[in-house]
Amino acid sequence: MATIKYTYLFNQGNRGMRNLLGGKGAGLAYMANKGLPVPPGFTITTQACNEYYDNDCKIWPELQQQIDESLKIIEEQTGKEFGGKTNPLLVSVRSGAPISMPGMMDTVLNLGLNDETVEVLAKLTNNRRFALDSYRRFIQIFSDVVCQIDRDKFEDVLDSIKAKFNQKMDNELTEESLDVVIKEYKVLFKKEMNADFYQDVRVQLKMAIEAVFESWQNERAIIYRNLHGMSHTMGTAVNVQSMVFGNFSDTSGTGVLFTRNPVTGDNKIFGEFLINAQGEDVVAGIRTPMPLDKLKDVMPEVYDELSQIVKKMEISYKDVQDVEFTIENGRLFFLQTRSAKRTAMAALKIAIDMYNEGIIDKITALTRVDPEQVEQLLHPTFDSETLKDLHPISKGLPASPGAANGQIYLDAKTVAKKSGEGKDTILVRHETTPDDIEGMIHCHAVVTSTGGMTSHAAVVARGMGRTCIVGCQNIDIDYKTRTVKIGEKTYHEGDWISVDGATGSVYDGKLETKSNVVPEQFTILMEWANEYALMEVRANADNPEDAQKALDFGAVGIGLCRTEHMFFGEERIYDMQRMILADDKETRIDALEKLYPYQKEDFKGIYRVMKELPSNIRLLDPPLHEFLPKTEADVEKLSKKINVSIEKINERSKALEEVNPMLGHRGCRLAVTYPEIYEMQVRAIVNAAVEVNEELNINIVPHIKIPLITGSTELIRLRKLIEDTIVAELDKLNAKLDYEIGIMIETPRACLRAEDLAELSDFFSFGTNDLTQMTYGFSRDDFSKFSNEYISKKLLPVDPFQTLDDLGVGKFIKMATDAARLKNPKMKVGICGEHGGDPESILICYKYGLDYVSCSPYRISLAKLVVAQATAFKLLSINDR
Amino acid sequence: MATIKYTYLFNQGNRGMRNLLGGKGAGLAYMANKGLPVPPGFTITTQACNEYYDNDCKIWPELQQQIDESLKIIEEQTGKEFGGKTNPLLVSVRSGAPISMPGMMDTVLNLGLNDETVEVLAKLTNNRRFALDSYRRFIQIFSDVVCQIDRDKFEDVLDSIKAKFNQKMDNELTEESLDVVIKEYKVLFKKEMNADFYQDVRVQLKMAIEAVFESWQNERAIIYRNLHGMSHTMGTAVNVQSMVFGNFSDTSGTGVLFTRNPVTGDNKIFGEFLINAQGEDVVAGIRTPMPLDKLKDVMPEVYDELSQIVKKMEISYKDVQDVEFTIENGRLFFLQTRSAKRTAMAALKIAIDMYNEGIIDKITALTRVDPEQVEQLLHPTFDSETLKDLHPISKGLPASPGAANGQIYLDAKTVAKKSGEGKDTILVRHETTPDDIEGMIHCHAVVTSTGGMTSHAAVVARGMGRTCIVGCQNIDIDYKTRTVKIGEKTYHEGDWISVDGATGSVYDGKLETKSNVVPEQFTILMEWANEYALMEVRANADNPEDAQKALDFGAVGIGLCRTEHMFFGEERIYDMQRMILADDKETRIDALEKLYPYQKEDFKGIYRVMKELPSNIRLLDPPLHEFLPKTEADVEKLSKKINVSIEKINERSKALEEVNPMLGHRGCRLAVTYPEIYEMQVRAIVNAAVEVNEELNINIVPHIKIPLITGSTELIRLRKLIEDTIVAELDKLNAKLDYEIGIMIETPRACLRAEDLAELSDFFSFGTNDLTQMTYGFSRDDFSKFSNEYISKKLLPVDPFQTLDDLGVGKFIKMATDAARLKNPKMKVGICGEHGGDPESILICYKYGLDYVSCSPYRISLAKLVVAQATAFKLLSINDR
Repeated sequence: MATIKYTYLFNQGNRGMRNLLGGKGAGLAYMANKGLPVPPGFTITTQACNEYYDNDCKIWPELQQQIDESLKIIEEQTGKEFGGKTNPLLVSVRSGAPISMPGMMDTVLNLGLNDETVEVLAKLTNNRRFALDSYRRFIQIFSDVVCQIDRDKFEDVLDSIKAKFNQKMDNELTEESLDVVIKEYKVLFKKEMNADFYQDVRVQLKMAIEAVFESWQNERAIIYRNLHGMSHTMGTAVNVQSMVFGNFSDTSGTGVLFTRNPVTGDNKIFGEFLINAQGEDVVAGIRTPMPLDKLKDVMPEVYDELSQIVKKMEISYKDVQDVEFTIENGRLFFLQTRSAKRTAMAALKIAIDMYNEGIIDKITALTRVDPEQVEQLLHPTFDSETLKDLHPISKGLPASPGAANGQIYLDAKTVAKKSGEGKDTILVRHETTPDDIEGMIHCHAVVTSTGGMTSHAAVVARGMGRTCIVGCQNIDIDYKTRTVKIGEKTYHEGDWISVDGATGSVYDGKLETKSNVVPEQFTILMEWANEYALMEVRANADNPEDAQKALDFGAVGIGLCRTEHMFFGEERIYDMQRMILADDKETRIDALEKLYPYQKEDFKGIYRVMKELPSNIRLLDPPLHEFLPKTEADVEKLSKKINVSIEKINERSKALEEVNPMLGHRGCRLAVTYPEIYEMQVRAIVNAAVEVNEELNINIVPHIKIPLITGSTELIRLRKLIEDTIVAELDKLNAKLDYEIGIMIETPRACLRAEDLAELSDFFSFGTNDLTQMTYGFSRDDFSKFSNEYISKKLLPVDPFQTLDDLGVGKFIKMATDAARLKNPKMKVGICGEHGGDPESILICYKYGLDYVSCSPYRISLAKLVVAQATAFKLLSINDR
Repeated sequence: MATIKYTYLFNQGNRGMRNLLGGKGAGLAYMANKGLPVPPGFTITTQACNEYYDNDCKIWPELQQQIDESLKIIEEQTGKEFGGKTNPLLVSVRSGAPISMPGMMDTVLNLGLNDETVEVLAKLTNNRRFALDSYRRFIQIFSDVVCQIDRDKFEDVLDSIKAKFNQKMDNELTEESLDVVIKEYKVLFKKEMNADFYQDVRVQLKMAIEAVFESWQNERAIIYRNLHGMSHTMGTAVNVQSMVFGNFSDTSGTGVLFTRNPVTGDNKIFGEFLINAQGEDVVAGIRTPMPLDKLKDVMPEVYDELSQIVKKMEISYKDVQDVEFTIENGRLFFLQTRSAKRTAMAALKIAIDMYNEGIIDKITALTRVDPEQVEQLLHPTFDSETLKDLHPISKGLPASPGAANGQIYLDAKTVAKKSGEGKDTILVRHETTPDDIEGMIHCHAVVTSTGGMTSHAAVVARGMGRTCIVGCQNIDIDYKTRTVKIGEKTYHEGDWISVDGATGSVYDGKLETKSNVVPEQFTILMEWANEYALMEVRANADNPEDAQKALDFGAVGIGLCRTEHMFFGEERIYDMQRMILADDKETRIDALEKLYPYQKEDFKGIYRVMKELPSNIRLLDPPLHEFLPKTEADVEKLSKKINVSIEKINERSKALEEVNPMLGHRGCRLAVTYPEIYEMQVRAIVNAAVEVNEELNINIVPHIKIPLITGSTELIRLRKLIEDTIVAELDKLNAKLDYEIGIMIETPRACLRAEDLAELSDFFSFGTNDLTQMTYGFSRDDFSKFSNEYISKKLLPVDPFQTLDDLGVGKFIKMATDAARLKNPKMKVGICGEHGGDPESILICYKYGLDYVSCSPYRISLAKLVVAQATAFKLLSINDR
């Protein structure tokens, strides 16, 4: 039987061996194979980790032997000896799983130091302080991550010695004090472990390797894997790498470089370095590093070698590299290279430049920009110079990006009025409700004192691209005196503030905003994205203006047109309220008749913009009590207006009150009780479509969507109601019209019964807000009371109302989509609502084969880019095979 | 190629051919094969129905030919001729699907009558009135069910002719008026169908057969099948049977008999008959039938034949039969036989008698009683003689059975006080809340003016076996004047009323109740049930008294012990409220410390009763605001009692308010925020178990249940909290204890993640109330606003809070159970809550292989019987193969 290979020298592996060597090991192998000067080392495989667990958590002789053999080769390659007395080999030990994950063991550096080798190192580097400091750090880290001794205990020792020597910062520690620190550390170690600090370097190494293996099963790592649905049987690899020293001599040094400018994207190497120094010195900020150009003067050969290699690396990795290098006695080593972080502007420029230079293809270029980041380029901002010296007067959650200034007004009506007079307005309220929509349309920004990222204000503002900050806790609004106290200062209506929706900061006074000019590269990129966006992107739009915006941004349809917002207009709301207060069907129908012409015009407006593009109109969804007035004053006003007694209004309000309105009398349940509501809406849709078809000589196919369906009996009844109404209406008009009737999938039961429902529906549209609420049993309105606790304690990876819960709601989406396609392989399935504009959620929809996502018009570019990238990644992974 | 057989004479089929011949056809075949005198006929197969749909909905030549041939044989067997002029054959045409379902076509009787044959029949029967009446009925039914003419139009014609002849009832119609009716009917038919009424009897038959086929796809039938998850491709069979006439002569007659007495169960034939009459005459009640014994005198040979055959039928069917027979010219025919409906007492007696007589085995006997019906025998009742002349003063929903009398009191505290003084009390309230528990414990009955079958009052009363009526709409309670207006009469506290929980009736004054003596046969039956109850039945019990009752009724454990009720006691509620109002962890812990000794004693009490039987204790579940006072007076009282300002209490109440409390901060979410609550509860459990173990020298294994889990991250954290607490406590006590930690499966997400959760749980317990709420998106508290509409319109087959929704919630139960058992085949899985006591729901749990159901102590006998029956039916179906 052939021996199993448990250790790979860096040059024995390759990039494809990620599962066996881990991500880090595969990367090191790649560099080594490309001939880059990498400090020699080897990787212990993930398979070894798994066998370690099968082997009572002990390193068995065969594995030990391979480790010893690999170490011997490293000694030969470096000319150093592990634990040696003339030129001791020091190594780093690092974990490296196939998928990067937190919770695993940290790096142990300088392993191989003991009471003897530390003095050899002191002589070799001619820097005893450095050697001692390395040793004390090693003892500290080893004790912490390998021996699990509480790190605070070492910090306490260090602090007391610093105090004694009157040294404040770590870098002020002298040789003398470090000698004491090491002595005391060893005492502490003995007390904790009942053993002397390990002087045998091979014992050090063995223990460090075991500690990496063990860390695979520590609690944080297990929780992380559970949270992300990752397998517990992958195991981790261990990387053992020889250390190099940039502080060896004056022909030594260390530095960091980017192969292109990460801020502007300019194609020019950009970096810094320090002579006779270790990486830490750069981080500690004691010495100021020199620009990389200077290296040309100091060590011209090294500079030439460096600049040639890194350009080759860029081509080889096909991306801008962020490279750490060290020079040890004139010899260049690469410690790490990775793709460089960059600004949105740089990302755009680099992607398109590299395509033009022939380094990457169009598909790859598409994957090189972060959609979320690029989207920011489209919103106005404040000048960063201006902001530098300003303190925000309040900080809230950045609910909707953009920068705006304006005068404070405290209710929607005043905002609408003042805007009409030409004023710049900002709506400031505790929170917003559907009553405030008109104000939100007219203001420059919305600021609320309560609510979270998924509150009404946040959702609606993002939907209309309005700058918005929510949950500003230090804002105290007094509606009676019409004043706002922010911090210590009291503002009156008409006072100016400025609002940065990207950061959640509110500033005093009027700050100038600047529009970001959409860069030419963005336009190019979006053209490419269109070629590869294989999943449709539609928009949520409830009126002709939004529909037009959606088209401008490139939407190919309306995924969700809510009809409830249409009833909040000045005059219509009274008819809506009359309808709700009606005692009998006749009065109800009479009020609905008054609403009918408005509804028809609403739909005509949208159809005139969208023409033949699909526009999914959702029939009335919210519970009726949402439309009734909430304050005494409003009740009184309504009573006068429609001539219904105050008692009657209050009585009906009380009767409609619900303990759990989310799970109450709403959605299609309204139409089961009051079919005349949907009848009116359907009549309006049919007449609007027929009239616009005639007007523009086109062929609109209405898409009608029924909310909150729970099963087929409900759907049979309502589909019949809708179809009968359509047929009767067309009969009356003597017209023809194709139409589609689909449903919202919002209840868990709809997901479970998707197969039956698919037989009765022309399309499915997931309403993932409600579905998330019911899947978790989280009320979106109440979730904020404990969500922070859940997210900070890692009980939830993210807010499931912002990013789809793949393991729960995602499983439902897959289940329902698969079941529907079994019945009807061509079934159109999409999602609408907040998740449709969230990149991670869009990828989940793509994964499960949805036909479209629908999002706010302002998120369409982002969504398209995300979809194009998903396609690109898929194509790239196919090419990889 | 062999010809496909589409028609079967009754004696060609057999009982096993249900799928091909339908239920009715298979039954007729069985009788015919047993040699019973059945009027000859034949069945057209379900396959013919399906091919009919594949064949453009036309009867094709091959099928027509087989129908003709079969009809010819029937003519030979009866000696009559279809459409014949001397002895015409008349037939009935009936639908009969494999599974009985409403919505299908009704029966057409007397097919074969036309203007000629009607006169022949008149002469043959010497009863022209009868012949004419049969003809007019035939025209009316044929027009309605075959030709879809609105039946009201025929009724209008009939009414106007009756008015003209001054005849009120149908049976007053004379020959003269019937002649006019038939004439007018034919006019109406011609107007509607543009054709004369069909005189060709073969056309009549063909159209009737087609109408049966068509009715398979009518709307009502489709909705019914969707609602019950039935296949649409079964098809229906058609039964064509010759008619016989009991009014042919004085040696003709008709009757009904039971092979045993259906009221008492006595083993003696019991029945009635009429000479020279048709079945309708019995129903119309014009003539008084004679007891069957008299037949012995009139037609002794027929009587002997009849009594011999029916006793054989009973043995052959192995059950008491309800038989319809007709005698035509001294010849006996059986028209129908079916299992007889019987009273609870008769069912018990017959089952045990037939077992003793060797007719059925024990398993079959078990299946012969309706558990719901037999359970009624256990509750006290009013004397039916007494009730006969009484009118109830109010009618509500029969929420919990039993009969009780008592004096009205309007709040829980007064009830407790008066009961303490030895009074018989009835608690009358708008609705009940957890505050009222003490009153509900002490009263004889609970009556509420609002609420449905799943309201708090109904659920809790059923749980404690307390008689209860809810939703008495004519009861008007005035808490201020301490009076109750029922109808027109005003009652004061202390006035007597009587309450019948089985019917929902409230009576004035004090009616005597009588305890039902548990019949000896019931005891025997329950012993048999114990042998076959293969799924465990546990009880829901929150205190030692209920636990004792559970044991008395035969429970093998506690499936659900709610801990929240324990905090409502007089003194404890203040500590609970102090805990909730605490500003910091210390104050909270301090209040919890005060609750700890109570909790420990609660659990000790339960453990002393249950000993080593499993007792699943659910940790705190409801949102904290449920424990705070609701009225100003109570707030004031609390403020004084615990020395916290009224403002503070109101402020905290406001902060804890939730928009959708069902989906809010409750269940294990409380323990994520306030781990100290569960810590206290777990400490109490551990100490209680250890102390009782010592006291009784037994080995209790605590079962701890975490509510409202949504995923594994939550469970890892809370399981650790609980285990750490247990370990620390055992350490302190220097004691040992095994324990199990399980979870409630109440959220859809828990069902989706069951596989992960199974790795971290020792048992699963479905909370189907919450799961139903979240699966449908129905708030139980608000559902009553539209539930009637949903149930009456058949959008829901039943109230899903009473009977498990198999297609939705049941699918979740199956999904989660299967997933859990994949990880751990021995995983204990059960359900607790209301559904655990509902027969149909219990069967669903049985179907999906659950280990136990848990129900109120008073439902245990019923549940055991249901489970035993499920096992019995399974064994019987295996024997059948």
